[in-house]
Amino acid sequence: MTIELINTGSELLLGRVLNTHQQWLCRQLADRSFTVDRQVAVPDDASSIRGAVHEALQRADCILTTGGLGPTCDDRTRELVADLLGRPLVHQPAVEERIRHYFESRNRPVPVRTGVEAWVPEGAEVLPNDHGTAPGLAFSLTPNPFRPGHDAWLVMLPGPPRELRPMFLEQVLPRLLRRFPRVDGFACRTLKTTGLGESLLEERLAGPLADLVTAGMELGFCARVGEVEVRFIARGPNAAATVTEAERRARKVDGVFIYGVEDDLLEEVVVREFLARRLTLALAESCTGGHITNRITNVPGASGILRAGLVTYSNESKQRFLGVPAATLAEYGAVSEPVARAMAEGARRETGADFGVAITGIAGPTGATPGKPVGTVFIAVSGPGGTLVQRQLNVFDRETFKYLTAQQALAWVLQLALTAPPAPPAAASLSPDPD
Amino acid sequence: MTIELINTGSELLLGRVLNTHQQWLCRQLADRSFTVDRQVAVPDDASSIRGAVHEALQRADCILTTGGLGPTCDDRTRELVADLLGRPLVHQPAVEERIRHYFESRNRPVPVRTGVEAWVPEGAEVLPNDHGTAPGLAFSLTPNPFRPGHDAWLVMLPGPPRELRPMFLEQVLPRLLRRFPRVDGFACRTLKTTGLGESLLEERLAGPLADLVTAGMELGFCARVGEVEVRFIARGPNAAATVTEAERRARKVDGVFIYGVEDDLLEEVVVREFLARRLTLALAESCTGGHITNRITNVPGASGILRAGLVTYSNESKQRFLGVPAATLAEYGAVSEPVARAMAEGARRETGADFGVAITGIAGPTGATPGKPVGTVFIAVSGPGGTLVQRQLNVFDRETFKYLTAQQALAWVLQLALTAPPAPPAAASLSPDPD
Repeated sequence: MTIELINTGSELLLGRVLNTHQQWLCRQLADRSFTVDRQVAVPDDASSIRGAVHEALQRADCILTTGGLGPTCDDRTRELVADLLGRPLVHQPAVEERIRHYFESRNRPVPVRTGVEAWVPEGAEVLPNDHGTAPGLAFSLTPNPFRPGHDAWLVMLPGPPRELRPMFLEQVLPRLLRRFPRVDGFACRTLKTTGLGESLLEERLAGPLADLVTAGMELGFCARVGEVEVRFIARGPNAAATVTEAERRARKVDGVFIYGVEDDLLEEVVVREFLARRLTLALAESCTGGHITNRITNVPGASGILRAGLVTYSNESKQRFLGVPAATLAEYGAVSEPVARAMAEGARRETGADFGVAITGIAGPTGATPGKPVGTVFIAVSGPGGTLVQRQLNVFDRETFKYLTAQQALAWVLQLALTAPPAPPAAASLSPDPD
Repeated sequence: MTIELINTGSELLLGRVLNTHQQWLCRQLADRSFTVDRQVAVPDDASSIRGAVHEALQRADCILTTGGLGPTCDDRTRELVADLLGRPLVHQPAVEERIRHYFESRNRPVPVRTGVEAWVPEGAEVLPNDHGTAPGLAFSLTPNPFRPGHDAWLVMLPGPPRELRPMFLEQVLPRLLRRFPRVDGFACRTLKTTGLGESLLEERLAGPLADLVTAGMELGFCARVGEVEVRFIARGPNAAATVTEAERRARKVDGVFIYGVEDDLLEEVVVREFLARRLTLALAESCTGGHITNRITNVPGASGILRAGLVTYSNESKQRFLGVPAATLAEYGAVSEPVARAMAEGARRETGADFGVAITGIAGPTGATPGKPVGTVFIAVSGPGGTLVQRQLNVFDRETFKYLTAQQALAWVLQLALTAPPAPPAAASLSPDPD
């Protein structure tokens, strides 16, 4: 089967935004054994959009479009596709009611123009939008008028990622899998690892996995900041058993920490494992500036583990909120092993958390001192078993520095927590905070 | 003139990498008034690449390709384009010598396969690669054999960004400007706004901008979380004056706050304006969980304005670090106007900052109480002029909730700071923290 993706939006052709839809949608499809054959981006003008959809219908079994379903004057995909397919737009009161509800439940006036989103091409299936106003639309073209002897399925998705992504996962994927069932076996397993770089990881895995690869299993690596994804893809009747066996062998390889699988995020695993062990956490961040606390609090349930996150960017705040002695700061400097240790112990002491994690370093671009180049960072973990400090040199741009340092700190405290004894039931219960 | 961009690479269609070439090249061109009319990504197979180039030659005056010029088995663009154009590959000793020098000057052995890069299609102009081995190639097709009556210029660029970008800027752009001189003017202006949603903003701007739009100015909107971008594009001899006039009128529209232009980020503007006014900031975040502090500290120079960010997720930490009275928490609950007020005033008092910003709310998915549904949030700003609190209802997934709330808080404290009197030179100087 042939799949084509059409991204509409003048902002793409003007280079104003990155086309994250392409990567995200292609990835979601590839992980389920569907491969996109062509991706096209066109500006918001009638002939470009119409032309791209027309061409794709001449070639593809499944066409996905993104963008152009909203209420403003440059949102034209809905009407142009309706016109191309010869389908009149029909007013759907249920869609209008849903849009009205969306605004009213947020105490906002209903803009006049959003009414256009309730006009739906005849015969289109409406995909309700749980995170915005414009519904998605799906056309079963049986037959496809532009490709004799073939059917086509044309799906139109809204542009905002927070609307598109859940709609695709919850509504489009199940329909796609029903419509284009995968007859041969297919299994894909992704392991999320830290501890070894891509090349070393590949060297270590090569021997243990050699016979599976020879027998046809695909082995893929994707290096990201502070972690490497390992991907196994197998096809055929033994696909599931093959990737399970590959995972079993990978988990025995020394020096690599497999913190999760598939779409697990390191911060999600930290919250999950801390909750399961009734452990609590406090963070004292200097150069990471709240990045770690922010990621932890992205996870629902974080209030069950997080006592506090203290972003002590200045020396004064390290003293005031963490009790770091002024003499330690004066003697060793803020970026030092003793200060990292005092921060982690202070975070634990001041909040009563089981684990205190502290970061102090030089994110750059300025701030280097003799012996401490930009990228120098000390990570301290204080827990029931004492306090440990590691020194890293993370030489990257500012945001990458923060992300990588967070990966190192989170993987470390997770490994320490996994080996810590479970806490006894707390006397003062950890009732979830309202937020 | 018509420009098309073709990105080759199976990794793009498998969703393994973001297509940063698209944004970068489109942006470079748009900033010089060249607009890309279509972008296509195709996998590394012969018919896809050949087909995409063939189609583009039937439509475009200028075609740019990226990728597929290297030495490995999946690098096929060079030979496929040569074949399509009926040009034999000719060995060029000068290119081979350059490749040999590239490796030898780095004390590396010359890989055997790089030799293929010295085989150049007959008639192609070689664009030397100063940052890698594969040269770029440019074809003047006069006439274009696939588009009677037209010429074409076909430029093939290597895939690695650190090779492509300098080659484009130093070699392709000058040739492009000579080949397609910009006779008509071109101007593009993007305004970053908060305060009104996309539809309402369009309604308010329609009247003031009507005559400019009628005269040909393009008006575009791009809704993002917590902000809307407005884009003006004008062509012709008065282009610059037109977009300047449009901006002048937009800035007079009530209810919209234009915090920046082009690529400005709200947190960058906050840091810039606070630095310019010698103002300092402290953050007390509950439900946003460090998100705002993290964004502020992404900006180089943040240490000059940020006294501390206190993520007081629990009631205990609100009391301990911000001095919120236990009685206030007990009487009103953590998500309340009085607690937001006490948090902002506490952040200001405990750190000595000019402005304290506090957030308390219910990010969800759980935590709702009677009268306070998920999405309820109180934002408080305490400054030289007193303390203000606003209540919002941000009903979104957790990360969007945090981002939107941050936009509201940052835009508000920025507006208040812009109207505050500048601080006198501080007695204790704000020496930048090492990190």
